[in-house]
Amino acid sequence: MSSNPSKPSKPSQSSNASKNAETQGLRLDEIVAQLGGELVGDGAKRVYQVATLEGAGPEHISFLSNPKYQKHLKSSRAGAVILAPDSAAETSSSSVENPPVSTSSRIIVRNPYLYFTRVSQLLNPNRSLQGGVHASAVVESNLPKTVSVGAGAVIGPDCKIGENCQIGAGCVVGSGVTLGAGSVLHANVTLYDGCFLGARNLVHSGTVIGSDGFGYARDADARWVKIPQIGCVVMGDDVEVGANTSIDRGAIEDTIIEDGVKIDNQVQIAHNCRIGALTAIAGCVGIAGSTHIGKRCMIGGAAMIIGHLEICDDVIISAATFVTKSITKPGEYAGVPFEPRRDWLKTTARLRHLDNLAATIRDLETRLAGLENKK
Amino acid sequence: MSSNPSKPSKPSQSSNASKNAETQGLRLDEIVAQLGGELVGDGAKRVYQVATLEGAGPEHISFLSNPKYQKHLKSSRAGAVILAPDSAAETSSSSVENPPVSTSSRIIVRNPYLYFTRVSQLLNPNRSLQGGVHASAVVESNLPKTVSVGAGAVIGPDCKIGENCQIGAGCVVGSGVTLGAGSVLHANVTLYDGCFLGARNLVHSGTVIGSDGFGYARDADARWVKIPQIGCVVMGDDVEVGANTSIDRGAIEDTIIEDGVKIDNQVQIAHNCRIGALTAIAGCVGIAGSTHIGKRCMIGGAAMIIGHLEICDDVIISAATFVTKSITKPGEYAGVPFEPRRDWLKTTARLRHLDNLAATIRDLETRLAGLENKK
Amino acid sequence: MSSNPSKPSKPSQSSNASKNAETQGLRLDEIVAQLGGELVGDGAKRVYQVATLEGAGPEHISFLSNPKYQKHLKSSRAGAVILAPDSAAETSSSSVENPPVSTSSRIIVRNPYLYFTRVSQLLNPNRSLQGGVHASAVVESNLPKTVSVGAGAVIGPDCKIGENCQIGAGCVVGSGVTLGAGSVLHANVTLYDGCFLGARNLVHSGTVIGSDGFGYARDADARWVKIPQIGCVVMGDDVEVGANTSIDRGAIEDTIIEDGVKIDNQVQIAHNCRIGALTAIAGCVGIAGSTHIGKRCMIGGAAMIIGHLEICDDVIISAATFVTKSITKPGEYAGVPFEPRRDWLKTTARLRHLDNLAATIRDLETRLAGLENKK
Repeated sequence: MSSNPSKPSKPSQSSNASKNAETQGLRLDEIVAQLGGELVGDGAKRVYQVATLEGAGPEHISFLSNPKYQKHLKSSRAGAVILAPDSAAETSSSSVENPPVSTSSRIIVRNPYLYFTRVSQLLNPNRSLQGGVHASAVVESNLPKTVSVGAGAVIGPDCKIGENCQIGAGCVVGSGVTLGAGSVLHANVTLYDGCFLGARNLVHSGTVIGSDGFGYARDADARWVKIPQIGCVVMGDDVEVGANTSIDRGAIEDTIIEDGVKIDNQVQIAHNCRIGALTAIAGCVGIAGSTHIGKRCMIGGAAMIIGHLEICDDVIISAATFVTKSITKPGEYAGVPFEPRRDWLKTTARLRHLDNLAATIRDLETRLAGLENKK
Repeated sequence: MSSNPSKPSKPSQSSNASKNAETQGLRLDEIVAQLGGELVGDGAKRVYQVATLEGAGPEHISFLSNPKYQKHLKSSRAGAVILAPDSAAETSSSSVENPPVSTSSRIIVRNPYLYFTRVSQLLNPNRSLQGGVHASAVVESNLPKTVSVGAGAVIGPDCKIGENCQIGAGCVVGSGVTLGAGSVLHANVTLYDGCFLGARNLVHSGTVIGSDGFGYARDADARWVKIPQIGCVVMGDDVEVGANTSIDRGAIEDTIIEDGVKIDNQVQIAHNCRIGALTAIAGCVGIAGSTHIGKRCMIGGAAMIIGHLEICDDVIISAATFVTKSITKPGEYAGVPFEPRRDWLKTTARLRHLDNLAATIRDLETRLAGLENKK
Repeated sequence: MSSNPSKPSKPSQSSNASKNAETQGLRLDEIVAQLGGELVGDGAKRVYQVATLEGAGPEHISFLSNPKYQKHLKSSRAGAVILAPDSAAETSSSSVENPPVSTSSRIIVRNPYLYFTRVSQLLNPNRSLQGGVHASAVVESNLPKTVSVGAGAVIGPDCKIGENCQIGAGCVVGSGVTLGAGSVLHANVTLYDGCFLGARNLVHSGTVIGSDGFGYARDADARWVKIPQIGCVVMGDDVEVGANTSIDRGAIEDTIIEDGVKIDNQVQIAHNCRIGALTAIAGCVGIAGSTHIGKRCMIGGAAMIIGHLEICDDVIISAATFVTKSITKPGEYAGVPFEPRRDWLKTTARLRHLDNLAATIRDLETRLAGLENKK
């Protein structure tokens, strides 16, 4: 055991980032040509990697999205900064005390965060592996030549694997699985028999898709009799699933994850759920069986949603909320038990003063008794 | 990215279901001969798969258990329906507007849900694999010939594996593990050294059984000193464990899961817990160390139970409940912090009106001050 | 299915424990020579394994730490007991009814629990495997000869693996990973590319380190655009991580776990978190992105901490607490929403009587109206 507990000695700048900086990088005018935006400064300048305003050097491109970080803009050493028209205007009024970032070029856009994301995608393209099946993999289906399969991965019979799929080491893909073109399974993912995943899915390690739903009938002796789970999991295109998440197959019909859904780590999605397109589900969320969630919803971390509910489109559920009833109106909801978020904020403020409230009531009782006795 | 996010294009009827329909199916009189019940209709009719009332066609057998779905009965195209005497009576009074499901046969039984489960088991028997060890598996123990071991699975020395066990691809079974006859480990399950699982256990992918409990002593410098976890996990017969669940080995004595316990996905069972026979534990539940849970309990999803508690037999804990004290009386409990469920329902109703309550108190104060000042 | 559900038939004493008892054991005077403490009794007596006071026989050494278990001391059959000076004094006054544990030797120390832990470490040393790479493992980096790699494990290129590391069966270690000397990965662990783990780390099965953080920008069509997660995970020395836990890599900079941190099962640590040295995190905890936690904190099971918070050193967070704001003062916090623990205890007491409180208010209203009407 180390004699002096402290933070790890490895430099905090990641090896990925430094490695990338050794590449060609991108000229600012190339970026603007591809992604739009107004360039103020030297179009020939090259940037090699993205960075935060505080962490950036001259080789980095950074961004300002949250006005809270405006203060970091002045002191940033970033070679270029992406920012909105308002922020750009504000920073142009520099003073002697706060000289402008002399060499910093700017790209002015409406949505700096989204633009930054696209720049980062350009600077950090997905590794395109050469297709090929590792000698230690066990593959019982025909694969396109562009598919890569890692060491020790297992692919059962009757699978349809699309072009350019990457199946990581140690993955187990059951029989009759469909995996759409361009999908990536990181190492140690498990897909049960018959699962259907669309194109460009990305599944992180440890995740299990298609395990049996938790379905039993109870007999007269209180024993649980297993209900065969004969549905599957059907997932659309552009779905991403984090690490160590579980998505159960349907009991009779299928569990459905629509296009563009993003699911974080340690999430549980029970049998026969339907998750609407473009909905995002943060870490540690649990959704019980047969609940249907609409499109474009955002479910905060550790929220729990009971079974057999209908949540309409465009609902935002705060972190750690416990949802016990269907929701028919778009909006923000929070709390245990849940209610519209603005009401929950009031409730929690009151909750924190419940003891004072009780003291006030005792005081009222005493004073009232005093008045009554005077009669 | 797809230009038009929408639900996945795969037909929702699962491939399993359709595949099964190509088999022989079962005659209704065969079903009744095996499982009992009163058959009304054509005993020679064959059904090939189970389905919901709404999803069923003439080749399917369906069931009506919840009166809420009575309305679907009339319009169902199911070839046969399992239902209770009451429902059967009600549906016999058909009219011109609502003709009876002309060709639908009925099986009348006391518990349609349980009966349906047994019919589904008949129509969807477990795949019985031929015994055999995949060439890529690494097995250091003697196995009966009826055991099947998937690709890349690893079985350590000194294990006792019973007849007809199925060990999925990528599983790692440590040394000295016992796995009772007829048990099934799905792909990528991990069993640590010395674990004992009874007969007919079913363990889903990603689950870890026998990892170290979270046990440390703190030294004078606030460092955590690891307590060797020398107990094991001992599981009875007919236990089912879902995906990505963790069951820790005991610190000194064993963690025990009794016969017929059913555990869902993403559950954490800490060291030295004892889970009583026939108890069911839904997804995302956490049970801290040394807590003992009685027989025939039902623990709702995401409930959290702190350590060193005793929960008696026949306790029902609602979803998302936080249990902080031992429970000595059977019944239903709910809430954060928990209380008998009927009390919690009152509490939550009040909670939602806490702001009104505070307003009422302010009003009372004003009125009382008015009275006092008049004196 | 078994006809008589009951507890598993395997004897509850674990095979590990009994196996160890067949070894040489340790003489009490050897223990005291190594670890200190005052020995009362026979220094030549040998003990072979640790046990609880209730479970111990003459071959075991046990301990008394919690005064609650004082009663078990008298009836214990333990060959030796570790206890504090106070407990030792109390037990010396034996009577005819309660004869002293005649043959029991005692070791008297200030911190019996810590001492017991160190004795257990002596009696249960880590298995030191012979170095060696299993024939079925796939290793693309140079390894010291003292490293052992289990069956089917995969180690990518450019890794730095320290002396005496043990990499379990089925593990997948990406490219460019550093694993400090003496670290142990149990079976089926996944480390993504570029992760840095210090010396003497211990990672349990199913855990994933270095998966992508949950980071997206939303475009004008409500589509989620993935932000490349280019940071890594950097972990100090003496970190232990339980089973099925997920630690995400940083979005731009790194996720950092400092020296001596202990993390339990089913925990989610999001991108760009920093966990201070010697902090312990119990099972089912979720920590959202960019939250920094101080040193020597203790986070209770199933606590949820939202993103972008700063928790100072020496904070204790109770189980199932929902932390929504930064904490700047050491101390104990609890509740949903959280507050100082002593306040939460009052709040919950009030919560349980909220219905009575409401009844009291109704009564006050009636009486006040009565007084007002009399005027």
